[in-house]
Amino acid sequence: MALLALLVAVVGPTSLSGSDAVQAARAWRENQERAILDEFVGLLRLPNSAQDLAALRRNAQAIAGILERRGVRTRLLESSNAPPVVYGELATPGARQTITFYAHYDGHPAEPERWYTRGPFSPVLMSTALEAGGQPIPLPNPGWPSDPEWRLYARSAADDKAAIIAMAAALEALRQRQVPLEANLKFFIEGENEIGSPHLEPLLRAHRQLLASDLWLLVDGALPANRQQQLVFGARGWLALELTVYGPRRELDSAEFSNWSPNPALQLARLLASMRDETGKVLIEGFYRGVAPLSKAELEAIAQAPNYDLALKRELGLAETEGGSRTLAEAINQPALNIRGIAAGTVGAAAPRRIPALARASVEVHLVKGMDPRTTAARLAEHIRKQGFYVTDAEPGESLRRTYSRICRIEQEPALNPVRTPIELDVSQRVIAAVEKARGPVMKMPTGGPVPAMSAVAGILEAPVILVPIANHDGNQHSHNENLRLQNLWDGIEVLAALMALPAPGAPAQKSTLAAARSSP
Amino acid sequence: MALLALLVAVVGPTSLSGSDAVQAARAWRENQERAILDEFVGLLRLPNSAQDLAALRRNAQAIAGILERRGVRTRLLESSNAPPVVYGELATPGARQTITFYAHYDGHPAEPERWYTRGPFSPVLMSTALEAGGQPIPLPNPGWPSDPEWRLYARSAADDKAAIIAMAAALEALRQRQVPLEANLKFFIEGENEIGSPHLEPLLRAHRQLLASDLWLLVDGALPANRQQQLVFGARGWLALELTVYGPRRELDSAEFSNWSPNPALQLARLLASMRDETGKVLIEGFYRGVAPLSKAELEAIAQAPNYDLALKRELGLAETEGGSRTLAEAINQPALNIRGIAAGTVGAAAPRRIPALARASVEVHLVKGMDPRTTAARLAEHIRKQGFYVTDAEPGESLRRTYSRICRIEQEPALNPVRTPIELDVSQRVIAAVEKARGPVMKMPTGGPVPAMSAVAGILEAPVILVPIANHDGNQHSHNENLRLQNLWDGIEVLAALMALPAPGAPAQKSTLAAARSSP
Repeated sequence: MALLALLVAVVGPTSLSGSDAVQAARAWRENQERAILDEFVGLLRLPNSAQDLAALRRNAQAIAGILERRGVRTRLLESSNAPPVVYGELATPGARQTITFYAHYDGHPAEPERWYTRGPFSPVLMSTALEAGGQPIPLPNPGWPSDPEWRLYARSAADDKAAIIAMAAALEALRQRQVPLEANLKFFIEGENEIGSPHLEPLLRAHRQLLASDLWLLVDGALPANRQQQLVFGARGWLALELTVYGPRRELDSAEFSNWSPNPALQLARLLASMRDETGKVLIEGFYRGVAPLSKAELEAIAQAPNYDLALKRELGLAETEGGSRTLAEAINQPALNIRGIAAGTVGAAAPRRIPALARASVEVHLVKGMDPRTTAARLAEHIRKQGFYVTDAEPGESLRRTYSRICRIEQEPALNPVRTPIELDVSQRVIAAVEKARGPVMKMPTGGPVPAMSAVAGILEAPVILVPIANHDGNQHSHNENLRLQNLWDGIEVLAALMALPAPGAPAQKSTLAAARSSP
Repeated sequence: MALLALLVAVVGPTSLSGSDAVQAARAWRENQERAILDEFVGLLRLPNSAQDLAALRRNAQAIAGILERRGVRTRLLESSNAPPVVYGELATPGARQTITFYAHYDGHPAEPERWYTRGPFSPVLMSTALEAGGQPIPLPNPGWPSDPEWRLYARSAADDKAAIIAMAAALEALRQRQVPLEANLKFFIEGENEIGSPHLEPLLRAHRQLLASDLWLLVDGALPANRQQQLVFGARGWLALELTVYGPRRELDSAEFSNWSPNPALQLARLLASMRDETGKVLIEGFYRGVAPLSKAELEAIAQAPNYDLALKRELGLAETEGGSRTLAEAINQPALNIRGIAAGTVGAAAPRRIPALARASVEVHLVKGMDPRTTAARLAEHIRKQGFYVTDAEPGESLRRTYSRICRIEQEPALNPVRTPIELDVSQRVIAAVEKARGPVMKMPTGGPVPAMSAVAGILEAPVILVPIANHDGNQHSHNENLRLQNLWDGIEVLAALMALPAPGAPAQKSTLAAARSSP
């Protein structure tokens, strides 16, 4: 901290505003595009698939270096047998707020053979999207402008190394242009996002003090197809139950045993059918109990969300959607019960004439604020009991099988708590205002899909958490030919600069500018 | 026929009885065990898997030779791209009845790597069942008796080359001992049983005259565990419908689309659940309409069937069976609707969070006498329509998908008609009496599982057809380590000799003995 104090120069409270941060970021970026791309390409060359802990650690070390070069003091937060979290902090003297920026450096499995370009870890700049006839082009000469439609193809170009590079570039711009800040900044860059952040909760608990913040901003995900800047204020919780219904101990010849041996596939079909009605309404007793109503601001945000439902229905070949006139934006803000899959016996013309021995289904619940995964799981189990099943969490043995005519095993996966940061909060309003300075009107989503990091941060650190996507919607995240549209990176830098310069709550506060770390004594 | 007439010597009607046929078969066999086994081993050495038409033809030629050596005039009945049927006939002058003996020479897929012995086509004689510690032993010296528990291990040892060897040995014994016959004998040995006899129906139609018979005896299957001789007078029909229910055109992220996109897995679960109640009763309108009631003799036979239900329930780990107190023997004589399999999306902890694009189920119906597969399929389709589905037999295109919110594609496989030869028929009673002379009290089953050959013969030739199993129940038919217990072969020879010597209907008829074909001029 002593060093950091040296690195910042105190300036007067009226010196510069949030718009200045955006302008500074843009002006600086326009002169530094090649340098930004070089740093990005260097980071993308580092393989980052889960399991390869050594490779992941090389990513973490590179990112620590990138942040250190911007004056961020970093350390690696370790969990055993896991890639480290790159933690960084940059103190702003007199700041009354602390903001933590989250991103992740690990990538979805690479599948090198499926890439059209030279592979996941050989970044290629393309003149536009592959689907639009993009061709490989060299990086622009230093000082030469890029084309906004150029795209950088590589694993994690969009998800989520773009966020790291945008953070670094925003920091650099703010330092170089001496934009005053009103917040301490922290950085939390993890390496297990794509496998569900299994070590995140214990790590947050272990470093609760270190990670204390007034706001967490998760820079991840993708913008919608209309390219409007989006902020997501929540995440649905998630609960998955693997159900196994037991029939005869072994598959039986149906010619010999049908009408006599119970068929677990039919028992399971009846059970699943009992869980929802035809409109998608969940019939499990108490399922909706406790659901927090949406606030006026949240309802407004949902009503204002762009509606692509008709086009989507057409694209997806759907004559009707569930719940009739409910829009997709409304639907995602309500709890849902979904069947991920059913498996029993064999289908197809060549299927043997059998009564299956087992039938399995994967049932998942998307929870909204006010629902608790544990309570919901208990209600589901109770519902299954009410359908006549003996419920167990283990493989049933001889005596159970001979005692209960219907047995359902429930295996529960690690659940996620729902998160909803109220849009009405002062901090939410300040975030919206800051981002709107960079990108104009913002699309505000009260709830998005499940995000383990969001649930963990909200649940353990009890900090407001907001998701800030910057990548293009068509960047093939989680697939081959992942790519980032350059304009999304440039815009992202400005969004992050504005957020780093977020005004403190209440009255104007003392502001400080970031000094250039390397050039300081 | 002229030649055949030369080969038989007319004997008086009182010369010998059915018991004589059994005694003759036994006496002859006891002296010929090594010769019978040599012929059996030679036949088992011929690979006989489906697809290998050249190998199957070598089986057919060998069998034609085996029958010719017993004075049977043979020819191969051909279908294009199919193994031939070995057809044979042996006329009995003055006979007022014709009996056709059916068997098949093709085998279930061989899976050589799974055999404990030297492989499917390297027959090995074992001292007892493998599971009981059986060890390989040499074939007995000529004239030395075998042990009844010895087993011959090879593909088709039980299913169904034992039937062919038993027929040949019975014929030989009847010839050598000059037992008088009252029937013309025909033989029909096919090579496509294990793939569902796809060329059988057209072949029967093409050779209707040639194949005219008063009785077909299908020598196939296995005896029950108590080793009692069984006769099966019918086969349930069979109908399979592959159902596909359509959701969105592609799998969707459930975090984004649940509560909005229909889920075909749930639609299918509801559809399947609507088909049966909790007791197994089928809820499809008209499903049971037309079912022929069981006759007094059939009901008696069912009541007399040995009841292993309690032991089976225990073995299979079932607390309850469908339909409560209904026995297995009762259950198989009633129509059934079974789900062979369900497949939609993915199950398991690693399943992606998705709404499946398709859900499939394989629904099969086991039909009993009085039900027609076509009518039943139509009723099923109508039921599906009543559940709100648009029913099609093809992949739905754009406009169908956009018009109907529920679409179910039905693909129907070739169906089998149900068969039930009344136990009260004179010919049935004569068959029972003949077999009881060989093996004591017979277990009479009004209906067994689906048997394509039985359906085809009953449907096209309109002849009474009865299934005569001779193999041991634990012979691993359709699996690796298939085997035949030698006593089952010896018993089978006597059963077949008794059936070849079946008394003609009505008053005592003229009888003829078989002369030794080869030794005749």
